[in-house]
Amino acid sequence: MFITLEGLDGSGKTTQARLLATRLEADGVEVVTTREPGGTPLGEQVRDLVLHGDYVAPWAEAALYAAARAQHVDQLIRPALERGATVICDRYVDSSVAYQGIARGLGLERVLELNLAVVEGLLPEHTFLLEIDVARAAGRMGAELDRIEREDDGFRTRVAAAYRKLAGMFPERYVVVDGTAAPEAIAEEIHGALGR
Amino acid sequence: MFITLEGLDGSGKTTQARLLATRLEADGVEVVTTREPGGTPLGEQVRDLVLHGDYVAPWAEAALYAAARAQHVDQLIRPALERGATVICDRYVDSSVAYQGIARGLGLERVLELNLAVVEGLLPEHTFLLEIDVARAAGRMGAELDRIEREDDGFRTRVAAAYRKLAGMFPERYVVVDGTAAPEAIAEEIHGALGR
Repeated sequence: MFITLEGLDGSGKTTQARLLATRLEADGVEVVTTREPGGTPLGEQVRDLVLHGDYVAPWAEAALYAAARAQHVDQLIRPALERGATVICDRYVDSSVAYQGIARGLGLERVLELNLAVVEGLLPEHTFLLEIDVARAAGRMGAELDRIEREDDGFRTRVAAAYRKLAGMFPERYVVVDGTAAPEAIAEEIHGALGR
Repeated sequence: MFITLEGLDGSGKTTQARLLATRLEADGVEVVTTREPGGTPLGEQVRDLVLHGDYVAPWAEAALYAAARAQHVDQLIRPALERGATVICDRYVDSSVAYQGIARGLGLERVLELNLAVVEGLLPEHTFLLEIDVARAAGRMGAELDRIEREDDGFRTRVAAAYRKLAGMFPERYVVVDGTAAPEAIAEEIHGALGR
């Protein structure tokens, strides 16, 4: 099973990935927890370029995320799924569609198409969107902000709206969760939604 | 005017870019000579990842080249064209289509589409394909081979065939040149083909 977590920086995705992994492992499932951009040595180098570099053109940003993702699918996600593991991934294709496609204005369809090409059509069975208001998300970010986190609330508002749009477009795999609830309560809700 | 040079490693593109620039400058034209992957600081970092790194998945390779290209168009090529300069670029979109799309088997259309998205449709007015036989190209490569140069003659044969296919698909901008002729003779032919 392939599960992704989506939402703003500061929405609690990393915490929920960890809590979900613990619950699934208690169910006896082999779990691989990973994140984007990153997840492979090449992906971490790309992460560094895109998040900590200087100016990155919008389409270069979209292509860099896609490159990290292609490597991630090839080296880690697809092999794990093929041996029967459950993969929990903190951000995936939908992040690119929301951030670059919609919030940066490159176009939902074009960014989705680019990503479907590089992952050869691999999409998750379940996507949990952790919704949280923009101000609260900004408040939860760490002290050292990366290039994307330094964007303003207007950008984050567009990202939040983009996610809501994606949840509406892909109702078969999206579950929208209140990211302001207590972490354990959210974890229960996510685990329950997987039908376990 | 936007001019690209294409062909195998060792086909003489770099030499011809320089010779053409000299001739156009003598005509009084402002010329910007550049290369891919690279051409910008981010592009050079991506070049290093893709050419000197370890294993790179085929679609990650295609997306990394596309990222370097997007940055190149945004920061260097489009601004130069907009101020009226002539840009001579050693490799461009067609390299990705030939190497990743055809020789690696990712699909001509899919790789072309990915690249047209990231360059926002910018294609050259003139493309010179330097044709040279595969064995001679291999013999002309330097002592330290990069990840692509280490591919075998079978790969290079597929790339050569791919270029011939592209020349046939885009006759309005392609000129096929005998890359085994004397460099100055090739330079005269290229300069002449530009109608100067």
